[in-house]
Amino acid sequence: MYVSVIGGEQCSKEIYELAMEVGRRIAEMKAILITGGRGGVMEAVCRGAKEKNGITIGILPSNDRKEGNKFLDYAIVTGIGYARNILVVLNGDIVIAIDGHYGTLSEISFALEYGKPVYGLLSWEIGIKNFNNVEELFEEIEKDIRENL
Amino acid sequence: MYVSVIGGEQCSKEIYELAMEVGRRIAEMKAILITGGRGGVMEAVCRGAKEKNGITIGILPSNDRKEGNKFLDYAIVTGIGYARNILVVLNGDIVIAIDGHYGTLSEISFALEYGKPVYGLLSWEIGIKNFNNVEELFEEIEKDIRENL
Amino acid sequence: MYVSVIGGEQCSKEIYELAMEVGRRIAEMKAILITGGRGGVMEAVCRGAKEKNGITIGILPSNDRKEGNKFLDYAIVTGIGYARNILVVLNGDIVIAIDGHYGTLSEISFALEYGKPVYGLLSWEIGIKNFNNVEELFEEIEKDIRENL
Amino acid sequence: MYVSVIGGEQCSKEIYELAMEVGRRIAEMKAILITGGRGGVMEAVCRGAKEKNGITIGILPSNDRKEGNKFLDYAIVTGIGYARNILVVLNGDIVIAIDGHYGTLSEISFALEYGKPVYGLLSWEIGIKNFNNVEELFEEIEKDIRENL
Repeated sequence: MYVSVIGGEQCSKEIYELAMEVGRRIAEMKAILITGGRGGVMEAVCRGAKEKNGITIGILPSNDRKEGNKFLDYAIVTGIGYARNILVVLNGDIVIAIDGHYGTLSEISFALEYGKPVYGLLSWEIGIKNFNNVEELFEEIEKDIRENL
Repeated sequence: MYVSVIGGEQCSKEIYELAMEVGRRIAEMKAILITGGRGGVMEAVCRGAKEKNGITIGILPSNDRKEGNKFLDYAIVTGIGYARNILVVLNGDIVIAIDGHYGTLSEISFALEYGKPVYGLLSWEIGIKNFNNVEELFEEIEKDIRENL
Repeated sequence: MYVSVIGGEQCSKEIYELAMEVGRRIAEMKAILITGGRGGVMEAVCRGAKEKNGITIGILPSNDRKEGNKFLDYAIVTGIGYARNILVVLNGDIVIAIDGHYGTLSEISFALEYGKPVYGLLSWEIGIKNFNNVEELFEEIEKDIRENL
Repeated sequence: MYVSVIGGEQCSKEIYELAMEVGRRIAEMKAILITGGRGGVMEAVCRGAKEKNGITIGILPSNDRKEGNKFLDYAIVTGIGYARNILVVLNGDIVIAIDGHYGTLSEISFALEYGKPVYGLLSWEIGIKNFNNVEELFEEIEKDIRENL
């Protein structure tokens, strides 16, 4: 199972902590984590996943692997700029949006356009299930996974 | 000047009429119209523009030019699927969103991420200037253009 | 009819002159010229086309329209870097390669992969019809067009 | 270290065997293998790598992970069609071309345009180092790696 996490390159310390916790939970689910590979929320979630020995893949906008954060197992370069946002979303069986600005909104809406399940954590209120804490977020995700089995 | 118009491939008759009027107004401004080149709002706005001898360019998702609507002067094929949404937005000096679902929302948010001026006509309420009629929409656009000169 | 012309951003004066002549011939055929929109061969062929009132479209790698040469009627920005090479090729009903280095070779091979007719003018010898002068090149192109009618 | 291997989706049994051997050698070098993720040469090289417990990543043209061959550890979907060829090449620190038709040629030329070291095994003769057997190919690769240290 692949889980894409989307969120801003800049974030508050509080959001960074929440994103780390999301990363730990994804690793504990034995899912592969997909992100945009850079800083902020993307870094935090990879960092959390690596604490629990998860697998982390970053899909980068440039063609320079060094642009990736240091918690990536695999850095995939693209050279297609922000069009890589679409790839981040397409690679998730589910998508989790944490906080975020317009870049994140574009990813949420792409995910919805492609019919992907999208879960928000303190994110945009545009018709997605949005949660205030990590515990409730994963209760819902795990329930949805069980029911689709 | 290039104006990108974004909106759904399906739309009501009412929205279709409004989109045609937007197309006429863009042609009267002597701006080049950029759309995603297909049906619905995209077709209507091109149709209106051609009534007033405007120039219409469609940027298509597939690599088949025949996919374009019949009101296009130039059909640019891409073969990159929905990633072409980004190209539609990047090619506008300003972006007008008419009605629309998640595809349109992704385009609005990309436009905002790139710092483009975005104007809505009965579209998503996510912080863009949103209007209920074509007259007010173009008053605002023309005011903004004058003030930036 | 759309004709894509591919070739290097740097070229000799001799190649520049030949490319201008190719542009004039494309305009005289009333075909729309597609190029990568930048300097060298791309500029020369647009310049020739404009001398004969042809239509010129450039598909640019960056998202900055100013990157285009001054002989473009329409500059389409992409922001996807060299991946735009594929778009240049996809938009031609036929493809003409003039001189060129590895960028041009990648475009020739993409064109061949997509089954496009490719004609060379002093270009790569990899199984395409390659000519030494503009006259013979267009004799062949015009013969092929007649025979497919 | 990332090694991209490019080659056709159809290939002879002989080429398939050679590609498997290339995969084994890449795994023994502890390099991560990048391919286009589909059949033929792409499958063979992944299969060889997995025999030696290497890591295999496939970058797919569609947005359907099931399109990937069964020897992939990670299948990255793109939805951008053949433009994904560029991503395959960009992700290699070195590129190995095995046999191949025009798709492979486009990848070789992109690699050369980006200044990547390209090695051929019974592949296109267009100025790359081309070898007839796996032993000589890897002698050269290992020599080049040592000399760059």
